Amino acid sequence: MFGPDITFLGVDRCDLTDPSSFAEADVVIVGAPFDGGTSNRPGARFGPQALRQACYLSHDGSRPSMALRVDGLKDLKVLDAGDVECYSGDLENSIKDIEAAVYTIAQSGAIPVILGGDHTIALPDARGVARHHGFGRISMIHFDAHADTGEIEFGHLYGHGQPMRRLIESGAIRGDRFLQLGLRGYWPGPEILSWMAQQNMRSYEMTEIVARGLPDCLTEAFTIALDDCDGIFLSVDIDVCDPGHAPGTGTPEPGGLTARELLDTVRRICYELPVLGVEIVEVAPPYDHADITAFLGNRVVLEALSAIARRREVAAGGEPWDPRKPLLEGR
Amino acid sequence: MFGPDITFLGVDRCDLTDPSSFAEADVVIVGAPFDGGTSNRPGARFGPQALRQACYLSHDGSRPSMALRVDGLKDLKVLDAGDVECYSGDLENSIKDIEAAVYTIAQSGAIPVILGGDHTIALPDARGVARHHGFGRISMIHFDAHADTGEIEFGHLYGHGQPMRRLIESGAIRGDRFLQLGLRGYWPGPEILSWMAQQNMRSYEMTEIVARGLPDCLTEAFTIALDDCDGIFLSVDIDVCDPGHAPGTGTPEPGGLTARELLDTVRRICYELPVLGVEIVEVAPPYDHADITAFLGNRVVLEALSAIARRREVAAGGEPWDPRKPLLEGR
Amino acid sequence: MFGPDITFLGVDRCDLTDPSSFAEADVVIVGAPFDGGTSNRPGARFGPQALRQACYLSHDGSRPSMALRVDGLKDLKVLDAGDVECYSGDLENSIKDIEAAVYTIAQSGAIPVILGGDHTIALPDARGVARHHGFGRISMIHFDAHADTGEIEFGHLYGHGQPMRRLIESGAIRGDRFLQLGLRGYWPGPEILSWMAQQNMRSYEMTEIVARGLPDCLTEAFTIALDDCDGIFLSVDIDVCDPGHAPGTGTPEPGGLTARELLDTVRRICYELPVLGVEIVEVAPPYDHADITAFLGNRVVLEALSAIARRREVAAGGEPWDPRKPLLEGR
Amino acid sequence: MFGPDITFLGVDRCDLTDPSSFAEADVVIVGAPFDGGTSNRPGARFGPQALRQACYLSHDGSRPSMALRVDGLKDLKVLDAGDVECYSGDLENSIKDIEAAVYTIAQSGAIPVILGGDHTIALPDARGVARHHGFGRISMIHFDAHADTGEIEFGHLYGHGQPMRRLIESGAIRGDRFLQLGLRGYWPGPEILSWMAQQNMRSYEMTEIVARGLPDCLTEAFTIALDDCDGIFLSVDIDVCDPGHAPGTGTPEPGGLTARELLDTVRRICYELPVLGVEIVEVAPPYDHADITAFLGNRVVLEALSAIARRREVAAGGEPWDPRKPLLEGR
Amino acid sequence: MFGPDITFLGVDRCDLTDPSSFAEADVVIVGAPFDGGTSNRPGARFGPQALRQACYLSHDGSRPSMALRVDGLKDLKVLDAGDVECYSGDLENSIKDIEAAVYTIAQSGAIPVILGGDHTIALPDARGVARHHGFGRISMIHFDAHADTGEIEFGHLYGHGQPMRRLIESGAIRGDRFLQLGLRGYWPGPEILSWMAQQNMRSYEMTEIVARGLPDCLTEAFTIALDDCDGIFLSVDIDVCDPGHAPGTGTPEPGGLTARELLDTVRRICYELPVLGVEIVEVAPPYDHADITAFLGNRVVLEALSAIARRREVAAGGEPWDPRKPLLEGR
Amino acid sequence: MFGPDITFLGVDRCDLTDPSSFAEADVVIVGAPFDGGTSNRPGARFGPQALRQACYLSHDGSRPSMALRVDGLKDLKVLDAGDVECYSGDLENSIKDIEAAVYTIAQSGAIPVILGGDHTIALPDARGVARHHGFGRISMIHFDAHADTGEIEFGHLYGHGQPMRRLIESGAIRGDRFLQLGLRGYWPGPEILSWMAQQNMRSYEMTEIVARGLPDCLTEAFTIALDDCDGIFLSVDIDVCDPGHAPGTGTPEPGGLTARELLDTVRRICYELPVLGVEIVEVAPPYDHADITAFLGNRVVLEALSAIARRREVAAGGEPWDPRKPLLEGR
Repeated sequence: MFGPDITFLGVDRCDLTDPSSFAEADVVIVGAPFDGGTSNRPGARFGPQALRQACYLSHDGSRPSMALRVDGLKDLKVLDAGDVECYSGDLENSIKDIEAAVYTIAQSGAIPVILGGDHTIALPDARGVARHHGFGRISMIHFDAHADTGEIEFGHLYGHGQPMRRLIESGAIRGDRFLQLGLRGYWPGPEILSWMAQQNMRSYEMTEIVARGLPDCLTEAFTIALDDCDGIFLSVDIDVCDPGHAPGTGTPEPGGLTARELLDTVRRICYELPVLGVEIVEVAPPYDHADITAFLGNRVVLEALSAIARRREVAAGGEPWDPRKPLLEGR
Repeated sequence: MFGPDITFLGVDRCDLTDPSSFAEADVVIVGAPFDGGTSNRPGARFGPQALRQACYLSHDGSRPSMALRVDGLKDLKVLDAGDVECYSGDLENSIKDIEAAVYTIAQSGAIPVILGGDHTIALPDARGVARHHGFGRISMIHFDAHADTGEIEFGHLYGHGQPMRRLIESGAIRGDRFLQLGLRGYWPGPEILSWMAQQNMRSYEMTEIVARGLPDCLTEAFTIALDDCDGIFLSVDIDVCDPGHAPGTGTPEPGGLTARELLDTVRRICYELPVLGVEIVEVAPPYDHADITAFLGNRVVLEALSAIARRREVAAGGEPWDPRKPLLEGR
Repeated sequence: MFGPDITFLGVDRCDLTDPSSFAEADVVIVGAPFDGGTSNRPGARFGPQALRQACYLSHDGSRPSMALRVDGLKDLKVLDAGDVECYSGDLENSIKDIEAAVYTIAQSGAIPVILGGDHTIALPDARGVARHHGFGRISMIHFDAHADTGEIEFGHLYGHGQPMRRLIESGAIRGDRFLQLGLRGYWPGPEILSWMAQQNMRSYEMTEIVARGLPDCLTEAFTIALDDCDGIFLSVDIDVCDPGHAPGTGTPEPGGLTARELLDTVRRICYELPVLGVEIVEVAPPYDHADITAFLGNRVVLEALSAIARRREVAAGGEPWDPRKPLLEGR
Repeated sequence: MFGPDITFLGVDRCDLTDPSSFAEADVVIVGAPFDGGTSNRPGARFGPQALRQACYLSHDGSRPSMALRVDGLKDLKVLDAGDVECYSGDLENSIKDIEAAVYTIAQSGAIPVILGGDHTIALPDARGVARHHGFGRISMIHFDAHADTGEIEFGHLYGHGQPMRRLIESGAIRGDRFLQLGLRGYWPGPEILSWMAQQNMRSYEMTEIVARGLPDCLTEAFTIALDDCDGIFLSVDIDVCDPGHAPGTGTPEPGGLTARELLDTVRRICYELPVLGVEIVEVAPPYDHADITAFLGNRVVLEALSAIARRREVAAGGEPWDPRKPLLEGR
Repeated sequence: MFGPDITFLGVDRCDLTDPSSFAEADVVIVGAPFDGGTSNRPGARFGPQALRQACYLSHDGSRPSMALRVDGLKDLKVLDAGDVECYSGDLENSIKDIEAAVYTIAQSGAIPVILGGDHTIALPDARGVARHHGFGRISMIHFDAHADTGEIEFGHLYGHGQPMRRLIESGAIRGDRFLQLGLRGYWPGPEILSWMAQQNMRSYEMTEIVARGLPDCLTEAFTIALDDCDGIFLSVDIDVCDPGHAPGTGTPEPGGLTARELLDTVRRICYELPVLGVEIVEVAPPYDHADITAFLGNRVVLEALSAIARRREVAAGGEPWDPRKPLLEGR
Repeated sequence: MFGPDITFLGVDRCDLTDPSSFAEADVVIVGAPFDGGTSNRPGARFGPQALRQACYLSHDGSRPSMALRVDGLKDLKVLDAGDVECYSGDLENSIKDIEAAVYTIAQSGAIPVILGGDHTIALPDARGVARHHGFGRISMIHFDAHADTGEIEFGHLYGHGQPMRRLIESGAIRGDRFLQLGLRGYWPGPEILSWMAQQNMRSYEMTEIVARGLPDCLTEAFTIALDDCDGIFLSVDIDVCDPGHAPGTGTPEPGGLTARELLDTVRRICYELPVLGVEIVEVAPPYDHADITAFLGNRVVLEALSAIARRREVAAGGEPWDPRKPLLEGR
């Protein structure tokens, strides 16, 4: 929507108004350049543009992962549908159009990967997926510094601080299948936390993560996520990382994950769990230095795709992945 | 609205819900931290905050002008009403609330000075003034690189590219009392320009300004502005200046005025003409370096206030202003 | 002192010249915008201004901690006394005035929290506290990349490289109750280190911290700190963190703590130990990108206040804090 | 070459290896992302990428000029051939390949517009044009802070400080048809200036331009340029502008033209003279703030194209351009 | 003092404690890296370091001016004495040491060129020169946005807002030989302006300069400066330029001179008048983008030296300078 | 080569054309300001300049390490030979000249420490060392996000993506003595990895390092490195660190080491192994914020030198280093 019309690292285009153009796709990437719901620093509207090109390699639609030994852009059929036209001054129409786009993708059988945009879009993103797979049938794994379960902000039901509440209220995602990781800081207050507790959400604040270790928390969360659900929606708010690793975001909160931890975790989720939709949000280029946040967001997408590809390879009889195996062994 | 609650350079506060708090005011400043209507770089929501504090002197509510020998903040009674709560994701309610605030100020007899925000707010700003002084009774002097007379953008009637069209259509401002200075570049195209011509707008593109000289163009524009109108609304989009002088803005267009030209012109307008409302818009701090755009915007406000004060002093029998008079002569 | 007159995240003001205004306070925040003692990059004079407002939430004087389940700004009575007027060109008067302000706060029974400024202010900050609680009766826990025990620099006894030596020499703090954590790099040399050894200081260089683990070092340090002392002065130089986490500082030294480690440690100290004074210094906004250093410094203050509040709650019979407890458990 | 494959503001692509793809073109744009010849700050390799997209309007291949009332991208057939693959570590092959590309374009009858890259490329750019139009048959109008007539630098004949000497030596451009405008500063020294004088070059240092006025100097230069030559090669080094207007460049020299002066001048040249080739060089994005230098460079290209279009329109019987005519008159 | 020990563009060093080392010098450059007197943004302590190296050419102690056809660094014997050790926390000793250094240089017969530092140093700089040439015998030509004639600031007589008052009070410079150019904005107020008027200072506010033209104002000022005085001290505060041209400074004031105007004016002063001392102050690198302010300051020094060299050449019988003469004529 | 002629933190100079000037040296530092081989962001040409001065302490040729209790710049005789003149447009001559310089140093018995420059220089750096110590007699320990074993890029054998392949092909380093640490991301693909496997390289991708722990991987690598080899060449590409810790580099890849890990590892290598040459490459100042990448690179050099000094001290009978020993113990 902003700037030239490009695709994610050069993958082929498709057109959401032409179902045949993505009929065979495993993954369809779509941009949601909306930042009208942000409560502080805007700029996430330029997220899709930045996430698509933040890479120093050729834009050739191929990225062989050294870690996973698959090519997430080639071993899967990945297409880019361009951006949903979002007008940041009109939240309601924007989320309606985003939901329609995501639903269209999910219906086709492809996994939608949505490039935000601020976190407002979690509502249409996850609802679009749930509309196809069934309300209450997908779990949410949500990386964020913030719970995003606000009630009403600036007089509105919608915005980047409330999508998770709206998702639960709508029934799209069950509250007790909501797994939040990386929360920290000073919002929300007791009232909203009580509401969250009543929904039986499971929220891992950073103190718990540090005390118990991230791997243990993940293992526990995975068990919940798979319990009576058919798949996972993965929502990554880049501010789950420490501002030192992700300065280019709207509401940075010190004390988060490292970039390494986020990449390792996204890989593990997409390798171990049946992921049905992914969003990466809150990359705000105006506050990014040397593009490091955009580079990180781009790699979150690639790790997700690579792990999905490896998961499918293993499901098809391939060798399970061993992270301890030396890079060149068996080449 | 964003950050701490401060007033413009330390002037006293007032409360728009309490008319007595600004009953005696000559000028009421109000912030409109809205950037949901911007078509490109956002960030103007932080304009009010930046414009209020971009000064290295004490925030003491006093600024004696060396050029004009008045103190725009003390010789006039200037109050700051804080920000209108604007949610950038909800354009329609935001402009409704802004218009109400501006109208409230105008009704009190004070001159509203609105700190934007993106240029979407020209619609409620000028309409709020016109509702008090009479539709069709005020002229618009509009500094901008862009005509802002778009028809529909992103499917919407409102946004930072269309306010001038909506103002004319609504009758708030007569098309033939629209004076635009500083236009340049590659937008709008012939169709919109034809519409503008049909409204008898008078738009000074930079080529004409360079060829004829800015002072001549201004003198001509002033004559039109005063013809069968009771006063002036002054709209300053900071992008009228060259990006070298005002990098911190959403849609920078090379080849504009210098900061000096803008300050001299604002001073001349507010000294020579009966100004009834002022807005300064499109200062976008995320793209500002060393705060130079915010400093410039702050000085636009101060030049306007100083010149209004001097105009009143002269009206009350004071000595007319002579820009050639040495600073220390007669002190 | 610089820019508008604001308080820390909107807490109420008090006036150090009017004791009644802070008679009931638990904590009084005061700014020391002095950077005349810095040996390299200046800018810490803007630290108080930045630390007070580096937050994306409302400036409403409330910050409920998810980690600690208290509101450090509401459960304690926290007031902000504004800035001590510091002239960076006059070190001697500046530190005299800072000491007087800190002493005034300590005398009232409140905990002074000083927002620096460069580290020169550790001398008046800790001495002001010690004057009330007794010379030699408080321990110093000092986070820093640098020992700050220089003898004479640029011909002066005072500056940001010498305050710890002056504190020991003056008797305000005993050398053997000086706990330093995070030291690294190439200063000071053997002579000064010998002097430090003679004072029986306990300095944890990063190599030791990495080899032994930060928690063990802290536990050991706490034992020393509580031995025959009545309380703790906590001095946090933001450069204890790695420059990747805190670029906006005067003398960055690679290889430091992560932001997460610093926040966890400050929380632990203020929860486990009787803290009587806190300073956060060397945040230099001109070198900060996307405000990440200011955000971190703001959170250091909030973690300290939250932990002090929780400590008091536990002392009053509340439940001890368990960092492993899930966020929503028991809500 | 770097990043995604885009065209100048969305114009259609062509392929230099397929002559039919640009057989009808009036103008062919080509990128030369080479900065191996720069003697100081690199980064101009990202110039083509930046120049193609530095605009806030849609990338729709249309830019109606308000000043000239033509659409430079539509009234002319403008195509973009992408980038010549340039390896900055291999100057000699890079300039060989660039010359071949430019020659191919010129041969087709189209005007080549080359997006640099550092000024090294003036040699292949102008030589490529001269090979088609005849050695000695085109004049050079060269905007630059620097004469670029060095003999040997870093042991090499080629680089961004020597192309103009090589052009004269090769006979591609006659020394006495070399018009340089905007020179200033402290390079080159007397020896090189003597060589330049011997070639009968005409170099307008800024002092002369200020003393005489830019319009007079231009008029004089145009007379020389047209004397016994068939056309003009226009070379614009963005550093001809003052660093305040063009910070993003390799060797900024204070005291240059304003952006406005450059745009007005480029327009006048392309309207009044038969321009056969254009290059815009030395835009270095790593040093650009808020993209203002890239925006300026983009507008240099658009002014050139718009003026060429208007010149053709006039040649075909259209109304001559009058810069004093009001924008809306006659619409 | 900060960073490596370098000289101005590679000129030879001298040692102020060894008079023989600069006995033959025409000009001695000395750095005064002091910013303890600045009332707002610090950073000018890094001015000397930046001014010495802000150039893309070789640091070879030679800079042949194209405009003036002399080599200011070679035709004059120019040495660099390094920095006076200044401790920004100790204003009084710093200015004492600076004055001693400047006096030492002046006594030797050389022209001191002082690289600031904040404007506090005007007091020791001009007084050091006046001590040698006689109190009251030199005129001051002072370029600045600010009058710098404050009485007491932050409780102190000294600082960057007061040096001009102290100079007049001390008798070093007569008030009626004080020529100020470029003043603008909102400081000082009437009381200080009255004091200035009483001293018969001649201060050209920007409005007068714009209305009358800079050349006329200069001509008038030169007449005053030469009346019953033996020479000139030239003080250039970089903030006399517009922030668009000089963002890297402590107290930027919009609406100033262009870089071109400043360079042309410095050249004219040093060519037409007997300059006995020069200072360039308030270049603050932390706020500079792409080093453009440092580049400008470096060129201010070079223009001054080049013009002094040309003035001497003419005095020795050389051809008078004609700014309209083409660069290559007569080479 | 760029800017003033300085030495690494003020160590003495030497002259490679005068063998007597470095006859006694333990270490000779040399700059290789070449970035013509970089495939993406340039700027590493300014690496040597930045690495030499990125320190806030005096440039006095002394840096006593607190961690290691030696002074790497004084306990060793360290000299700086300045920069090899590199022209980024001429890769082939540049690497020839670099190799000659490194060989000259190695021949003298000193350890060469090369400040890059992009990674292209690994070829001449390691080959220059191997020419003296014997082809195949030194092992390579290589920290990098990228394997740098490309075959041909941009039609060339040489560049920053291929040096390791060229080294192995040339026989300078045996493939099975190549230890790579920190690899990650999406390059190279299977073909190049197969070639690497055939050479019996040992490459530790980050996933393996995270899974096994860095210390274990290092211990294993050390064993290989010492097997039938006489010493080590240590190549540190700063992009081995996470972009949060090293943003100022050409091809940043998220998910790398922390600065702390890199410093600890360099120290361990130089303390435990016989290091014969060191290079630090890919520090690109144009993309660096607050100089944090340059600071880190400077400390990499100092850690290496300090550890070499301590290793020699221990070899001469000194006490082995114990990282757990408190800083002040035994002082």
